[in-house]
Amino acid sequence: MAPQKLKIGAAGLGRMGKRHALNFLNRTPRAELVAAFSPDPAEIAWARQHLEPHGVTLYDNYQKMIEHPGIMAVVIGTATSVHAEEAIQAMEKNLHVLCEKPLSTSIEVCRNVVSESKKRLHLKVMCGFSRRFDESYRDAFQKMEQGLIGRPSILRSQTCDKHDPSGFYVAYAAWSGGVFVDMAVHDIDLTLWFFGDDIIPKSVSAHGIRAVQPELKQYNDYDNAVGIVEFHNGKIAYYYCSRMMAHGQEDTTEIIGTEGKLTVNSNPQQNFVNHYHSGGITREVPPHYWGRFEMAFVKEAQEFADACLDGTPLPMKLSNAAKAVEIGSALQEALVTGKQIHFDEIGRRVEKPSL
Amino acid sequence: MAPQKLKIGAAGLGRMGKRHALNFLNRTPRAELVAAFSPDPAEIAWARQHLEPHGVTLYDNYQKMIEHPGIMAVVIGTATSVHAEEAIQAMEKNLHVLCEKPLSTSIEVCRNVVSESKKRLHLKVMCGFSRRFDESYRDAFQKMEQGLIGRPSILRSQTCDKHDPSGFYVAYAAWSGGVFVDMAVHDIDLTLWFFGDDIIPKSVSAHGIRAVQPELKQYNDYDNAVGIVEFHNGKIAYYYCSRMMAHGQEDTTEIIGTEGKLTVNSNPQQNFVNHYHSGGITREVPPHYWGRFEMAFVKEAQEFADACLDGTPLPMKLSNAAKAVEIGSALQEALVTGKQIHFDEIGRRVEKPSL
Amino acid sequence: MAPQKLKIGAAGLGRMGKRHALNFLNRTPRAELVAAFSPDPAEIAWARQHLEPHGVTLYDNYQKMIEHPGIMAVVIGTATSVHAEEAIQAMEKNLHVLCEKPLSTSIEVCRNVVSESKKRLHLKVMCGFSRRFDESYRDAFQKMEQGLIGRPSILRSQTCDKHDPSGFYVAYAAWSGGVFVDMAVHDIDLTLWFFGDDIIPKSVSAHGIRAVQPELKQYNDYDNAVGIVEFHNGKIAYYYCSRMMAHGQEDTTEIIGTEGKLTVNSNPQQNFVNHYHSGGITREVPPHYWGRFEMAFVKEAQEFADACLDGTPLPMKLSNAAKAVEIGSALQEALVTGKQIHFDEIGRRVEKPSL
Amino acid sequence: MAPQKLKIGAAGLGRMGKRHALNFLNRTPRAELVAAFSPDPAEIAWARQHLEPHGVTLYDNYQKMIEHPGIMAVVIGTATSVHAEEAIQAMEKNLHVLCEKPLSTSIEVCRNVVSESKKRLHLKVMCGFSRRFDESYRDAFQKMEQGLIGRPSILRSQTCDKHDPSGFYVAYAAWSGGVFVDMAVHDIDLTLWFFGDDIIPKSVSAHGIRAVQPELKQYNDYDNAVGIVEFHNGKIAYYYCSRMMAHGQEDTTEIIGTEGKLTVNSNPQQNFVNHYHSGGITREVPPHYWGRFEMAFVKEAQEFADACLDGTPLPMKLSNAAKAVEIGSALQEALVTGKQIHFDEIGRRVEKPSL
Repeated sequence: MAPQKLKIGAAGLGRMGKRHALNFLNRTPRAELVAAFSPDPAEIAWARQHLEPHGVTLYDNYQKMIEHPGIMAVVIGTATSVHAEEAIQAMEKNLHVLCEKPLSTSIEVCRNVVSESKKRLHLKVMCGFSRRFDESYRDAFQKMEQGLIGRPSILRSQTCDKHDPSGFYVAYAAWSGGVFVDMAVHDIDLTLWFFGDDIIPKSVSAHGIRAVQPELKQYNDYDNAVGIVEFHNGKIAYYYCSRMMAHGQEDTTEIIGTEGKLTVNSNPQQNFVNHYHSGGITREVPPHYWGRFEMAFVKEAQEFADACLDGTPLPMKLSNAAKAVEIGSALQEALVTGKQIHFDEIGRRVEKPSL
Repeated sequence: MAPQKLKIGAAGLGRMGKRHALNFLNRTPRAELVAAFSPDPAEIAWARQHLEPHGVTLYDNYQKMIEHPGIMAVVIGTATSVHAEEAIQAMEKNLHVLCEKPLSTSIEVCRNVVSESKKRLHLKVMCGFSRRFDESYRDAFQKMEQGLIGRPSILRSQTCDKHDPSGFYVAYAAWSGGVFVDMAVHDIDLTLWFFGDDIIPKSVSAHGIRAVQPELKQYNDYDNAVGIVEFHNGKIAYYYCSRMMAHGQEDTTEIIGTEGKLTVNSNPQQNFVNHYHSGGITREVPPHYWGRFEMAFVKEAQEFADACLDGTPLPMKLSNAAKAVEIGSALQEALVTGKQIHFDEIGRRVEKPSL
Repeated sequence: MAPQKLKIGAAGLGRMGKRHALNFLNRTPRAELVAAFSPDPAEIAWARQHLEPHGVTLYDNYQKMIEHPGIMAVVIGTATSVHAEEAIQAMEKNLHVLCEKPLSTSIEVCRNVVSESKKRLHLKVMCGFSRRFDESYRDAFQKMEQGLIGRPSILRSQTCDKHDPSGFYVAYAAWSGGVFVDMAVHDIDLTLWFFGDDIIPKSVSAHGIRAVQPELKQYNDYDNAVGIVEFHNGKIAYYYCSRMMAHGQEDTTEIIGTEGKLTVNSNPQQNFVNHYHSGGITREVPPHYWGRFEMAFVKEAQEFADACLDGTPLPMKLSNAAKAVEIGSALQEALVTGKQIHFDEIGRRVEKPSL
Repeated sequence: MAPQKLKIGAAGLGRMGKRHALNFLNRTPRAELVAAFSPDPAEIAWARQHLEPHGVTLYDNYQKMIEHPGIMAVVIGTATSVHAEEAIQAMEKNLHVLCEKPLSTSIEVCRNVVSESKKRLHLKVMCGFSRRFDESYRDAFQKMEQGLIGRPSILRSQTCDKHDPSGFYVAYAAWSGGVFVDMAVHDIDLTLWFFGDDIIPKSVSAHGIRAVQPELKQYNDYDNAVGIVEFHNGKIAYYYCSRMMAHGQEDTTEIIGTEGKLTVNSNPQQNFVNHYHSGGITREVPPHYWGRFEMAFVKEAQEFADACLDGTPLPMKLSNAAKAVEIGSALQEALVTGKQIHFDEIGRRVEKPSL
């Protein structure tokens, strides 16, 4: 008898939603994409061509999709504003959920999703932080766990996008939650992974500029920002987010310990080619996150299917997704107010620094 | 209606055969693995667990497999000695063929397969040189085609395996055709790709040593060998093959032109991690070819399926597979005889060099 | 007639003082080391062996040395606490001055030296920030000046020393001025160079930990610190200082512009050797700043001699040395108080951020 | 009393001769450049400006220069054709000799110089193979000596110059001895260093093309050549020489052992700068050997002075310089005749390969 497959529906067929749908259709042997939903006729037209011929039922109504016969799980790649609501609705239908990051740009809404998930511990509910599934980050984590760098103490991480002159990211800033919630949330999630998810921020500082997109001022956002989070256990993480890179995507992380250091992607490269010419030696860089993390998204889909089918643990807690948004929001607040923000040892906001 | 898929059978389920079977099963959306053959009960046992539950019919008889209802193609990953025979039998059944390299270690047998294939031009028959499907080699080729290095003139390429102290490769040397036929054949195929498959060798030199496996002497083979092929159009390729690497697989190629140079894999790396420690900075290297070329094999399966289903051209000619073995054999002869070998401008063996 | 040489005296023969003395003795063709001073008998004993035989007169009294017949300049490599006083005394004797950094850990004292130098504009007075003489930093600066990265906007720079378990740096912290004044002052000087020395800080944040030297607490100092300086012209610099590196010295700088990025030393290396072994590929890293900047110090001595003899401008203003200490002190204050510090557009300290 | 210095004269003030003269004048503390010779009025004019003011006596007659009062040594940087004669004349005057490579392009003449030197063992006579003084090659050698790569077995080395379209190297080919004697002689010297200078060639193969300078045909020379030398003790060296590089100088060496590999300069770089731009990440490469080996020439001068003054051994035997030319000549002969050349176990030329 053929092994059971995870019957899954895909909600949202935008840029990332399409990729999730195709990953579950073609690159997740233990899953079967049975349904897809989009409110957007253009996306449905795409799906009619690329999904329907392979037996995927299309819906323009999310509620109906999650009632598709036999459906066991959903992958949510819709607009951030509906992530949480759709995740909760799916849980109410007893479906496993893989939700694109972030759950929400609102801390409270994030916490609601976490609470809901705690009522249904048999369901696998995951917010997709793709770097958790990247081979290099995993290798670095294992090396750290093996003690190769002593006690991890400083983490530097950056999420830097290739400059997009189209103005897309200005409009996007209206509802993205700001650069630290939208971009650095990946770096914060890495911090929770490498430093442990029980760490408590002690103080937070941030500074930003608008170097290429002055229009961001209307949304109180920035195109380049640097932030520092100091934790109560004597660790520091610092972040750089930018949407101004000329050369491509450059997401780099350093984990610095008392006896060594691990870096991930300190030398970005598109592939194994170097071109030697009269101006020197040049290698290319992936233009976008997909060029760097495509296989991590495939792995994410596969491990999600495994966890749902086998009941095995997911590689990350849902509560981290809320915590990452909390820390991102504190950084964003420090950024826009120009004030350092302080927390006591149990994480409550306080006025004065504890020295 | 669901799109047609390429119904394919896998012959041979050894190390590489398993990988081909799983690629067609799981990572080739347009193909359907319908059958698998192995004469080896242990391999059949593996298939019973990993293939049969997914609807793959198992055979211990190659002839019967190629008569499986609806079968359209075979992927051949059996022992080299039966590649050619199985390929021809499949063609006789009107099946497309993807055959692991080499077609044969015998030039004559290679040529027979090529002749047979010319009788059935509607069939897609390909010898799988995986580097042709590697993203980096393709990028390098496109850059060369764009004229970025002027006229390509010198090609350096090496196939270097991690040392395997088990003695496997000593036994293997009995029938491998020798180090230039078994290993350098990849580098020779790259030469045909980058220099053009109409190039004619002018002279061939080779030298070898047995540095770690003196037992190879009984098979007249070597564990390290260096060879040079000079072509009639004023180009040179030189090769290094080794089975002695401590650090892992290192397959590197340089294409040197009159106005620039392209390198592929001049800095081998397992992933994007660097470890900084008291002895310096260390990165790891893939231990085996699979770590370097896994995605190229996936691409190979996908493009083979595309070509079979759509009738589009394959990215390489079958006759190159025969030509690569010819050149490899000349290098091997030069290696074991200690004599330079010469060819005239139409490729006939001559005694004296044409200066 | 032999060309005139710059007759110079060396004050201080400790670790760095010795190097300056030997550079002027052996590697500065246009200078002649005529005198050397140290209050320390051990250092004088060293000088008796290494300097005196080459015609250098030794002094245990600074005043007497600066009255050495014919002396034209001094290089000051004594303890930081006497830098300023000795520099002023030398100027009063009409001598050119090359002073090790910092002029002083006190902003006021720094300013005094700058004021004194302004009274004697015919004298060359320089505080030695060696990176200004490093070939790579100069190349990066020229590339920036050529417009290769658009408008420079973000600067990341770190000064990271190999961990010294001897406890030396704990004792040293008593009078070093703190990690940002002692270490980051180099990175701040680079900021003044690359961003322009007329930039005005707008706000300053800093955080630190004591990861390997808890004893630093008694001096209110830290072994790892991260700081951000936001400037009024829409630029940000951020710094990381550490004395905890396992692998060696790692002084890295990135200058990020609106159209590109320049990095200096993003891949530290001791030399051109790579060692391939069963654990991967390893390269070594210089253990100390001398391994990275030796030739910059030689260049510094040579250009100082040129400027003194030819009356040509020095490559940096003395006032920058004071300004770098000012910014370093603000970072240090932010670090120890846990408060963000703000400045108005003409550099006056203000309470509230100007948003 | 001032320590004794090595009074040295410089013969030849062409491109390399000037550099030697300036190194002994300015960068060799234990040497004193007392005299310089050139037959060329233009070079003497240069010397009048750059050497004479520093007390260097100029000569247009070599014989007279080597009789300069107190002279103890000569550095010979004249045309190759007079190297040997001048070296012998200097020895006859009881002078130490540092001679640019090669001693001669004639094996016999080389041997004469070696014979002469054996009659005067108190004299230091060295042929300057600069790579022997390069920090990276020395580090690699030490690592090999420490056993880090097991038994060295394969050496790959290349000397590749930036393409010079001026035609200089075509004219130069008239008397350079050919590409293997002129260029690969460095790589052969490295082979003698890393494999031991008692190694005996067993067979030699070589192939070449004229890709950018067809005019070289008149001198029977090539602008790109690949050669293999197999040694009787089971080792192989293979070489690539080219004058066609677009990107700059690229002199790379790999020493491959039974348990590891060492590379020198596998990633050529001008300095520590990387430029990130819309086309990728670019680093520059030194255009000429001076950019790569400047400090090795300084070290060479210093160690030569040390050896002369202290009677300590030189880091290389003069006989190696002859042996390197012998092997280079065999490669050149193999190149131009298109025949493999064979030697017996005591190095005598034989007709047939010993298998």
